Order: sequence, then structure tokens, then C-alpha cells
Amino acid sequence: MSEINPDTYLARYASRTRGMTASEIRALFAVAERPEIAFLAGGMPYTAALDLEAVAEVTQGVIAENGAWALQYGGGQGMPELREALVGVMAAEGIAAHPDDVVVTAGGQQGLDLVAKLFCDPGDLIVAEGPSYVGALGAFASYEADVVHVPMDDDGLDTDALEATLAQLAHDRRPVKFLYTIPNHQNPAGSSLSSRRRERVVQLAEQFDLIIVEDNPYGLLDFKGELRPALLSLAPERVIYIGTLSKILSPGLRVGWVAATESVRDKLVLLKEAADLCQSNLTQAVAQRWFATQPWQAQVETFRGVYRERCDAMLGELAASFPAECRWTQPTGGFFVWVRLPHGLDAKQLLAKALRARVAYVPGAAFYADGGGGEELRLSFCFPPPERIREGVRRLAEVVHDEIAFAHALFGDQE
Amino acid sequence: MSEINPDTYLARYASRTRGMTASEIRALFAVAERPEIAFLAGGMPYTAALDLEAVAEVTQGVIAENGAWALQYGGGQGMPELREALVGVMAAEGIAAHPDDVVVTAGGQQGLDLVAKLFCDPGDLIVAEGPSYVGALGAFASYEADVVHVPMDDDGLDTDALEATLAQLAHDRRPVKFLYTIPNHQNPAGSSLSSRRRERVVQLAEQFDLIIVEDNPYGLLDFKGELRPALLSLAPERVIYIGTLSKILSPGLRVGWVAATESVRDKLVLLKEAADLCQSNLTQAVAQRWFATQPWQAQVETFRGVYRERCDAMLGELAASFPAECRWTQPTGGFFVWVRLPHGLDAKQLLAKALRARVAYVPGAAFYADGGGGEELRLSFCFPPPERIREGVRRLAEVVHDEIAFAHALFGDQE
Repeated sequence: MSEINPDTYLARYASRTRGMTASEIRALFAVAERPEIAFLAGGMPYTAALDLEAVAEVTQGVIAENGAWALQYGGGQGMPELREALVGVMAAEGIAAHPDDVVVTAGGQQGLDLVAKLFCDPGDLIVAEGPSYVGALGAFASYEADVVHVPMDDDGLDTDALEATLAQLAHDRRPVKFLYTIPNHQNPAGSSLSSRRRERVVQLAEQFDLIIVEDNPYGLLDFKGELRPALLSLAPERVIYIGTLSKILSPGLRVGWVAATESVRDKLVLLKEAADLCQSNLTQAVAQRWFATQPWQAQVETFRGVYRERCDAMLGELAASFPAECRWTQPTGGFFVWVRLPHGLDAKQLLAKALRARVAYVPGAAFYADGGGGEELRLSFCFPPPERIREGVRRLAEVVHDEIAFAHALFGDQE
Repeated sequence: MSEINPDTYLARYASRTRGMTASEIRALFAVAERPEIAFLAGGMPYTAALDLEAVAEVTQGVIAENGAWALQYGGGQGMPELREALVGVMAAEGIAAHPDDVVVTAGGQQGLDLVAKLFCDPGDLIVAEGPSYVGALGAFASYEADVVHVPMDDDGLDTDALEATLAQLAHDRRPVKFLYTIPNHQNPAGSSLSSRRRERVVQLAEQFDLIIVEDNPYGLLDFKGELRPALLSLAPERVIYIGTLSKILSPGLRVGWVAATESVRDKLVLLKEAADLCQSNLTQAVAQRWFATQPWQAQVETFRGVYRERCDAMLGELAASFPAECRWTQPTGGFFVWVRLPHGLDAKQLLAKALRARVAYVPGAAFYADGGGGEELRLSFCFPPPERIREGVRRLAEVVHDEIAFAHALFGDQE
């Protein structure tokens, strides 16, 4: 029998993976996970700070008390008792919700995927911060939706720029499916949307009849425990809220959720069933029992302390050793610092030199759907210990200093 | 602030959930799970036959030895050691594969979803058995693909009918994205594709340049442990193979996989990452450790024995009490018996009477994308104990007898 012709075979693919190549971030990880490299590239929470004995106890309890159930299929919307616990997590952020509003998903990522699947046909427009979460951009691209970025500053999404963009798109009769935003300790920028701007975003949503997809993985990881009003609280009928346990418990459980109005929720349950039938009962039950039996807020406080110390280490070293020509954000929570290089430096080209100097970061272009971000990069402080972070920042500072000196030697001091 | 207009809101939905309504099967389950009802409707494996102490031991070991890792993010393709174990499961069915060929998915269902996402644009054609797995039909519908059914008999897919269908579609210049088939102990029909027909399917695939999606949840659950050659073995370049641990270990782990050629596998990894980033490390590690440390084939043998006894109970009672005008399949493995009612009886209408008589099944229409199956129904023997199965079949037999008698009284004996 003849082998199939690979070209014919590939020609059958629908256009859904058009333009998708092996994620640059993943490829980078393969190189950069060597132990000698200061890994400032990942978004992995520091799961070693979890109380693993407590997790073991919880898991054992689930199997001992409810094993046959935990190992069985579950319902498409998710375990009711877990949905109650997730509403409790939202309440800890000042959000009032009902377990009926919640659909359990495989991490926040599946929430993004299902919302994109529900709303987006090829060529549809989504408005998002620039830079934005690379996983969201991947999910949107997989439905061939286009992303229009709106710039950010230290107070998060620039609402004047948002208004101008929405007005221009309305003028051009280009309907917007939704605004995608991470208002708290944004990935990758590290900045948060100010309270005043939250009001403004909601006003603009009303003015332009806009749906908002609010992605909130880091809200509870404010270093001072400060809370800002969720967009969902300000405009419950307009906001589809995406939550996750990945940063306050464990990403290995793959438990996230979407909270939305009934009509959207019903459709998401159907899409969840079509996507993978149901969430794992076992990991749902572990999460549910965690919240029912463990001091989960104390665990969140532990995580906060870990990340605060690491962020301090990163910001301290950036101030001490980074060239004056660079700019970076001052996160008050979350996992990331966003760095802007001097004009003319290319963060992607610089990465090869950085890896030789044994430090890894993610070039900014990964966080833009439009080719932007060439002079920007993301540093993460979530995973390595403080001394390693300082070391990495020092190594990177040297690389950037060299690059600036080289540019000056080549082109002279043009200031 | 005014509330959003729900009609406007709903009008934004893409067409992806067009025609999707709350699954009839799920709605049925809500009613039919009352304890007094003999539940012959579900496809849940009998997880109580699992060695729960062994599962507890395995889970404890994973967290004790590798907890921080198990609770962390994983890679998009899945844990390498688990992929090796899955290749071992395939080897137990006589299939040669390599761990690199495998992508771990959230059950077989996510494999179906990702394959449909990769290949199907709205209006694209998939050829499938009639009847076919309701979850596959749901996944295909969620990408707005259309399904053309090919009839089955006791030897599985009717290959003459398949040839005629493919020829007609080729004549009409309607390209087929793939053939979707469950060759072993099919859900819902309960019949298996004969070895001779497997050769014929592969010949037709070559003749019509067809890709085959082979879904194999029940292959190891042949009551005599008989194996038939996998289509993947017969035509490795043409077949995308979907496996699952749901029926030989636990559906609550949500571990399935796709095995495919490199080009397809690479695209599936990208789509998996866009869908939910990665599979749960915890449930992957539990599955991996299960295969590494437990007599997993003895567990499969236990399941086989359980289902064989239940199938015998169902077939025995069908023979003893069902009207001679009915026809049903004689499964040699799997979970299901497919029943054809006498002409004129409506399985959906009959369900209300069956539920009043305290027995539940799934009407055949759920397993057709084209409105067929009105006179057919699926009985499952996987979950209830044998006595309950016999009771349920007796109750249903009475309902069907009554219905036939009623029809005869109304219209006379027209034979």
C-alpha cells in the first residue's frame, strides 16, 4: 500500500492553525531549563511553597471517603460543592456570585478557549491590552480571531486610548466581540488597572455596548492584600469572569472557572461537554476538600510573602544594576516585571546573548498579536529564589550594558 | 447603569452553538438517576470494581515522592513516562507506536474535539457509522461540521454502503475530512468491525484518499480477550488513533490520548496548549504510577468479568422477555446493546412510559446527526448489577409489549 502524500494530507487541515508555530516560549523553555541558567522566563507558581502534607491528607481523604465517585465521570458544569467553594474565593475578593453562575474549566485557559469558541468566527475582533497574556492570544488565534491592542501604562489599560480605539472601530463599522483584560497585576506587564479607570472601562463598555472578559489569576496575590473592585462587580451583566486556582493552590489540578450570566453559562456548559465531557472529579474533589478543610487563606498569605520577597529582589537589583536608559514596571503583586529597552535594541536578538550569559526571559513580541513588543521583555520573579533572581538580573544587566555600549560605539552618542 | 439587552447580547454569539440544545441524554440523566429507576441509559464504567486501595496507594506515592512537580504545570504533549505507559497499553492490543507519536488529552473526548478543530471548517463533511457516539457528534457539531452516516450490521460498518457513500460524495465533489469509526464494541451499537471489513475499510481509504479517525475505548474489554487488528496497525499513515483510560482505569482522571503521524501530532500539541495549556500533572502521574506499579492487566480482566456477566444478564433477559418483533445486537464486549423496535414505534415517545415503569434508556435519535434512529434505542449494561439489569429489561419488555398490543388493537394485525 502506498504511503499517503504528506502534502495532500496537510492540505486537508482547516485554517485553524494557520500561522501557529511551535510556541516561542515553549521552545525557549526547552533550552532555558538547564540548571545553570537563571530562569526569569516562566510563569510557574512556586508550588514548593504549598503545604504538601496537607495536599496529601486532602487527597487521601477524597479517595478514602469518596473514591468510586472521584474516579467516575462528573457533570458538565462541575461539582456543585466545588462551585460553592469557588464562589467563596470570589467573595474573598469582594465579588458576589452564585454557584449556579459558575462553570468549572480546565484552568483559566479553557475558560478563554470556550469563550473564544462561543463568540468568535474567523476575522472577528477582540480588543485587548498591549501587551497581553500569550495564552489568551493563542486561544483567540486558534479561532482565527484578530486582536487589536490598546496600550497600557502604570495604571493599567489606557482608557483614553481604549475610547479612541473603540470610537475608530465603531466608525469603521468593525464590531468588537469583547474586551479582554487582566485588571490585576497583569501578565505580562505587572501593572494594575486603577479604580478610577475601572469605572471608566465600565462606562465605555456601556457607551459602546461592549462585553468584557475579565481574567483574574493574580487578584489575591497583591503584596499588601489590597483589593480593587472587580469589573464583574461593577457591571455584572456585561462581564464574563475567568478565575483559576493555579496561582492560589496548584496549576497541576487544572481547576479554573468562568462566572457569567445564565445565557452565556448555559452555552459554555454545552461547549465544555463537547470539549472534554467534564472536569476530573478527582481534582475537583481535592480542590473542594482543600477549601473545606484547610486554612486556604493562610496558604495564599504564604504565597504572597514568597512573591513579595522575590519581587523586591528583582526590583532592587534592577535599580542597582540596570542601565538608566531602560524602563520597567513596579508591580504590587503577581509574577511579572515588564522591561522596556532603549530604542533600537531588539529583545529577541538579545535573548541569544542572554542565554550565553546564563539568564532567560521572554521577548516582548510573544505578548502582541500585531508584531509589536520588539524592544520589550518580560521578567518573571515567581519561581527562582531571591538570590537567583538577583544573579539573573545582574547577568542580564551586563548584556544590556554591553549592547548599549556597542550601539554607542557603532553609531555614536546620538542624544 | 442600564442592563444590557439580552437579545443584543445573544446576537453576538458566533454560530458555534447553533442547533446545540441541552443534551437530551444529560436532561434524561437528571430525571432517571432516581434510585427506583433501573438505569440502562448511562455509559459510566463500574468504578466500584476498581481496586480503590491500590489507587489510594498510588496517589499517596505520587504526592509523597513528586508532589511539587505533580501540582505544577506540565508540557503540552503530556508527561513522557505516561506516554510510554500508553504505548504499552496500545501494545497490549497489538499496536506498535512510539511515545513521540502520542499527545495526552482530557479523555478521548478532547482528542475528538482537537481533531475536529484541526480539520473542520463549517459545512465540512465527516463520514461516520450510523448510529455513532453522541459525544463525537457533539464535538463535530461544535465546529459546525456535517456528518454523513453509513449503516452498520452485526459485523460493524457496512463497507459496501461505505463504498457507495464515498463514491457518491466524490461524484458530487464533496470532500470528506475524515471517516470517524469505533471499530471495537461500538458505542452505541455494540457490534465490532470484522477483520475482513477492516481490510476493506483500509482499501477504501486508500482508494478515496481518506483519513480515518479510529476511536477505541472498548478494545481491551472484549469478553474473551480477543483482539482484532487496529486500523492504525493496518494503515499507520492514514489513521489518527484515539485512546482513553476511562474504561480500563478511571474516567475521573480524564486521561486519554491521540496517536498520529508527526505533522498531525505537532498541530494537536499546539491546539492542546491553546485549549487548556496542559493535562493535569497530578492525574497523569497517578495514571503513570498505576501502570508502573500495579497489575493493570488483572484490573482490566476484572472489568471484563464484570461487564461479561452484566451483558449475559441483559442478553438473557432480552431473549426471555422481549417481544419477538424486536431485534438487538449480540455484543462480545464493551458496554452497550442496540435495540430496534418494530416499525412504527417511537423510542423517544416510549421513554416517558418506560420512565413511569421505572426503567431508563437512551432513544436512538441521540446517536444520529441526521434525524434517524427513531425506532432504535441504546441499552447499557455497564453500571447496574445483573439483577437490576434483568429487572430493567423485564420492565421495558412489558412497556414494549403493551405498545405493540396497543398498535395492533388500533390498526389491526397488518402482517
